[in-house]
Amino acid sequence: MVATDGRPAPNQQSSTFNLKSYLEAQQAQVEAALEQSLPQAYPDKIYEAMRYSLLAGGKRLRPILCLATCELAGGTAAMAMPTACALEMIHTMSLIHDDLPAMDNDDYRRGKLTNHKVYGEDIAILAGDGLLAYAFEWVASKTQDVPAQQVLQVISHLGRAVGAAGLVGGQVVDLESEGKNDITLETLNYIHTHKTGALLKACVVSGAILAGAAEDERQRLSRYAENIGLAFQIVDDILDITATQEELGKTAGKDLQAQKATYPSIWGLEESKVQAQQLVAAAKGELATFGEKAQPLLALADFITARTS
Amino acid sequence: MVATDGRPAPNQQSSTFNLKSYLEAQQAQVEAALEQSLPQAYPDKIYEAMRYSLLAGGKRLRPILCLATCELAGGTAAMAMPTACALEMIHTMSLIHDDLPAMDNDDYRRGKLTNHKVYGEDIAILAGDGLLAYAFEWVASKTQDVPAQQVLQVISHLGRAVGAAGLVGGQVVDLESEGKNDITLETLNYIHTHKTGALLKACVVSGAILAGAAEDERQRLSRYAENIGLAFQIVDDILDITATQEELGKTAGKDLQAQKATYPSIWGLEESKVQAQQLVAAAKGELATFGEKAQPLLALADFITARTS
Repeated sequence: MVATDGRPAPNQQSSTFNLKSYLEAQQAQVEAALEQSLPQAYPDKIYEAMRYSLLAGGKRLRPILCLATCELAGGTAAMAMPTACALEMIHTMSLIHDDLPAMDNDDYRRGKLTNHKVYGEDIAILAGDGLLAYAFEWVASKTQDVPAQQVLQVISHLGRAVGAAGLVGGQVVDLESEGKNDITLETLNYIHTHKTGALLKACVVSGAILAGAAEDERQRLSRYAENIGLAFQIVDDILDITATQEELGKTAGKDLQAQKATYPSIWGLEESKVQAQQLVAAAKGELATFGEKAQPLLALADFITARTS
Repeated sequence: MVATDGRPAPNQQSSTFNLKSYLEAQQAQVEAALEQSLPQAYPDKIYEAMRYSLLAGGKRLRPILCLATCELAGGTAAMAMPTACALEMIHTMSLIHDDLPAMDNDDYRRGKLTNHKVYGEDIAILAGDGLLAYAFEWVASKTQDVPAQQVLQVISHLGRAVGAAGLVGGQVVDLESEGKNDITLETLNYIHTHKTGALLKACVVSGAILAGAAEDERQRLSRYAENIGLAFQIVDDILDITATQEELGKTAGKDLQAQKATYPSIWGLEESKVQAQQLVAAAKGELATFGEKAQPLLALADFITARTS
């Protein structure tokens, strides 16, 4: 693959791009913005609970995807930072509620006790609600230098990504599929394109909208996001089998215990790895026309299949 | 009290205003808009659960307050309808989550089984999340004929009203106060100005913002909302003692059972009624300068203290 201006294709160049230092710099920016977004306040307990999970570390992949896409499409990191933080607030909400006893009943997350194990179920439910509401407030009130109409489009996308047409819908089908032995690939794809994929896609699409990207660019970036979203989940399924609890920072082998259908359970482990790599290659293909500017998103696509936690 | 143009003051006129037919007409409009906002879709179970609680009837006081304020301030009902529906979605979310076993553990709401009793705790948590996310999506994507900047302001207000600085914060302090005998009036006021008051205020303020009301009008309407919000809660406390389960459509006497501090427990029943009436009078006073246009909001203020369910 050669870029249209005759330079080497970006995915050949990406080896020279230092992803590690890029991620460290972006993570530091995101951490600082998250910390500032949610200062401790009265009532103490709810802010502590929200901060406990929001500031628990993690790769900050979603905010970084949003920032990187906005910059790729001609915007600035500052334009996208409120949305980047909102995406992490939404993601954190979904983790807190997903870990509840009535849902996945997990005790550990990112190597720490889950929210309800520390603060109780009632506060954990409310902390999730608070983070979800705050995400929309934050985007609406803090986004600067972006036309208001585009900010509304971002809010609409975020809402759709997290609601019954997105993340929540994926979780419902996931819950319904538990313990069933006859889950089809179609159902498994539905679960993951909604439960994980919708929010990852919203990260990329919202970054593009904030930058004012043209429709064809937005669609290309959207397909990039769909591909890495599915690859991300396949890798997650693989890691659940191959990684230890220490590496994951959460309970390992949960899928097997819960008899959940996974890509490895349908395709086997090796074929799952191949499929993930093919999706990453397809994702990178969508970025060919962006040239060097695409280096962060190209490297992020590789990072997703290479990650060990 | 006489209006500045010499006409009889609006709260004297309000006896000629037919609140019953006004409420019936507005409720019918809101019901139709809510029904259209959330059609049944795949995954069936989550849409059923969301629709079960959203379309369970009720007074639709919040949407009607929003529509009435928007019209009072020079806007149209159509401009405010998406926000009016969103307010009911948010309110419904708070009821679903509030009824959960980890929270108030209620079996009945509006005379029907609570969401988690019908669909299970996991689906009830997700139905609440889905409604909350959808509320913001709905306002952002469906509001028409309002400048985008004002729609963003509304979204910011809604987020703040439901989050830790609003409804969620009020619920947390309420949970912390349960079973305590030494709750101060200050704490009780905090609970209710946040748990119930913040969203009622958001109904009125968002209606005013959508109509493009001037700052002084917005502040007057905001004070009207604060006063009726607190009156509403005092009446709610009174009803919990005096009404039967059949009248309430939910479990009666819950506050006493839970040893919750209430206005009647601090002031006694009679003084609570007097305080509620004084708040309603103050609320109506804020509307004096609006003339005849204020009739719906004046009548709604009366309705709030007169309601039996």
